[in-house]
Amino acid sequence: MKNRKVKTLKKLKNLGKRIITDIQNKKIPKIKVPSRSTSNIIYDDNKRHYVLGDKYGVRSLGNVKQLRKIGQMLYVANFCKELIKKGKTATLREMYYVSEGWDVDFNDQQESNNISEDLEIVLGVTREDLGLLPEEDGASVYGKLTVREGDIEIDAMKAGKSGYTIPPTVDEIEFVDHDVERVIAVETMGMYHRLVQEKAHKKFDCLIVGLKGQAARATRRFLKRLNEELKLPVYICNDGDPWGFHIAMVIISGSAKLAHVNHELATPNAKFLGVTATDIINYDLPTDPLEEVDIIRLKELLRDPRYKDEFWRREIKKMLKIKKKAEQQSFSKYGLEYVVDTYLPEKLEELEG
Amino acid sequence: MKNRKVKTLKKLKNLGKRIITDIQNKKIPKIKVPSRSTSNIIYDDNKRHYVLGDKYGVRSLGNVKQLRKIGQMLYVANFCKELIKKGKTATLREMYYVSEGWDVDFNDQQESNNISEDLEIVLGVTREDLGLLPEEDGASVYGKLTVREGDIEIDAMKAGKSGYTIPPTVDEIEFVDHDVERVIAVETMGMYHRLVQEKAHKKFDCLIVGLKGQAARATRRFLKRLNEELKLPVYICNDGDPWGFHIAMVIISGSAKLAHVNHELATPNAKFLGVTATDIINYDLPTDPLEEVDIIRLKELLRDPRYKDEFWRREIKKMLKIKKKAEQQSFSKYGLEYVVDTYLPEKLEELEG
Repeated sequence: MKNRKVKTLKKLKNLGKRIITDIQNKKIPKIKVPSRSTSNIIYDDNKRHYVLGDKYGVRSLGNVKQLRKIGQMLYVANFCKELIKKGKTATLREMYYVSEGWDVDFNDQQESNNISEDLEIVLGVTREDLGLLPEEDGASVYGKLTVREGDIEIDAMKAGKSGYTIPPTVDEIEFVDHDVERVIAVETMGMYHRLVQEKAHKKFDCLIVGLKGQAARATRRFLKRLNEELKLPVYICNDGDPWGFHIAMVIISGSAKLAHVNHELATPNAKFLGVTATDIINYDLPTDPLEEVDIIRLKELLRDPRYKDEFWRREIKKMLKIKKKAEQQSFSKYGLEYVVDTYLPEKLEELEG
Repeated sequence: MKNRKVKTLKKLKNLGKRIITDIQNKKIPKIKVPSRSTSNIIYDDNKRHYVLGDKYGVRSLGNVKQLRKIGQMLYVANFCKELIKKGKTATLREMYYVSEGWDVDFNDQQESNNISEDLEIVLGVTREDLGLLPEEDGASVYGKLTVREGDIEIDAMKAGKSGYTIPPTVDEIEFVDHDVERVIAVETMGMYHRLVQEKAHKKFDCLIVGLKGQAARATRRFLKRLNEELKLPVYICNDGDPWGFHIAMVIISGSAKLAHVNHELATPNAKFLGVTATDIINYDLPTDPLEEVDIIRLKELLRDPRYKDEFWRREIKKMLKIKKKAEQQSFSKYGLEYVVDTYLPEKLEELEG
């Protein structure tokens, strides 16, 4: 069993033991649950991502109103303990259905999700550690990286054109070998296939990662591990609009909603490689006018602490001024090869000096 | 170059030659374009999918109004010819941006998509043959199948837990080897991972395919090829609601919109394995009440020629009567293993006899 799983199993058992010991000692069992309310979600300048503050609530078995929630949490804890022991995983949806057989079942999926999140926070583990997997798989990865999943080794150059897919069980992946110097992640699979076809992995000694829109948790964790364990710089090339910016920013600085696990998911050293408002002007890209919803969103980003550094403020203001946005694929105006032959080398030069 | 590419290249060249010859002979060049209007989309009982009827329009270089469309089609044809020669592909979006440099560019993406579709129909090829790829990748495949993409062989048992991803260039895949007797496709990646974990590939000697919702073109073509080239029965296990039914039906009988390529995409021999209204009753599954939109959709399906056989009519009517729907994952009510240990064996027995 992997180290993280062993630790999680121990934490789960300890939670149960503590409750039983309290009961044996005729003390009323209590569980401290850190608060996830907006007022307790704080942007940490040092860590460069959102964290939870120190507010918390106490759930006591001596309080009739809290009995149900504690009961549900213990059922979930027990379910996860069995999952880990059996080496299995389940989706939150599956657990919700399994809970139909419990003495304290859930009214709806939301209640079940909340209790799982409470348990993550109480134990200081991720839902993946608990064996509770998200529905969606991660990004596509292409390039000179060999990973191991269980007893199988996978070479991300030999997994086919669509690459190696990051599984939800991302912490069980071992990095066996690599021969790359950086990671270039792109928003769309259209651009991913462009980079593969134009041999960007050779030209830039890089891994190519196709995010498929908003990055899945598994993708974010994988990028963080590449950055921290393999010391690879991570660059993100998205569409030049508020949505493209934010897909990158959630990879870089995490989300407020996941403040309790951002330390496992955020890659503060990752850099946005484009498309910027400056690129739109410098490369004379085909554009679409900003829509009302884009403008509202850009103004929101200006008030967001994750966007407070000079680069972002300048680019967001410039985009509001030129009132235009552009897609990654718009570089094709100059031919399919342009993005790899001209744009990316120039931008990498700029960022890496 | 693959056979299909060679054929397509020849067709593209012939299209150009015909126009030049006409001009040299002082004849006005004309192109016959089969109509894609609703009145020309017909359900073919023998083929068991929609086809185009025999209505067509003629675009003539002698008609000023049609000059632009013919010009665009020839530019697209030329672009595709170059793609094939270079062994490249492009997304429709990329081609749209490339077209900025043409003498007859497009007003919007829709115009560009329409012309590409015209070209598919005029030449009797698919957009994939032309090198114009959709944005999205195909399904995840797990099990004893080895394929070749170019000079790389991929074993779908050794591509990691998330399996082998079907690339958009699905006709360039060669089936090298397999040791399975059937294919089981499921709607969600949650269910895909359940089947992998419970070793469904061993229990049922099957390939496990994770559709990720509505099946991509590449997935539909891949399933058809598995069924026709490898003679493997294909079963589809989706949610028990009109959307799950229809995801299966588009795999089985194609869509009206793609009438001109259904013969390449539809797998009329594929079978729906569940969840049915009968299953909801027999297995006493956890359900949600049908919403108004579900009821409207189910009634639409009853009027759809693809659903005219006895099985579908009975199940749709039964669902309208019990007013309930159920998800694939609801079998977890009986434990995570139940779907593989009990449900699927019983259903396969029923379908295979």
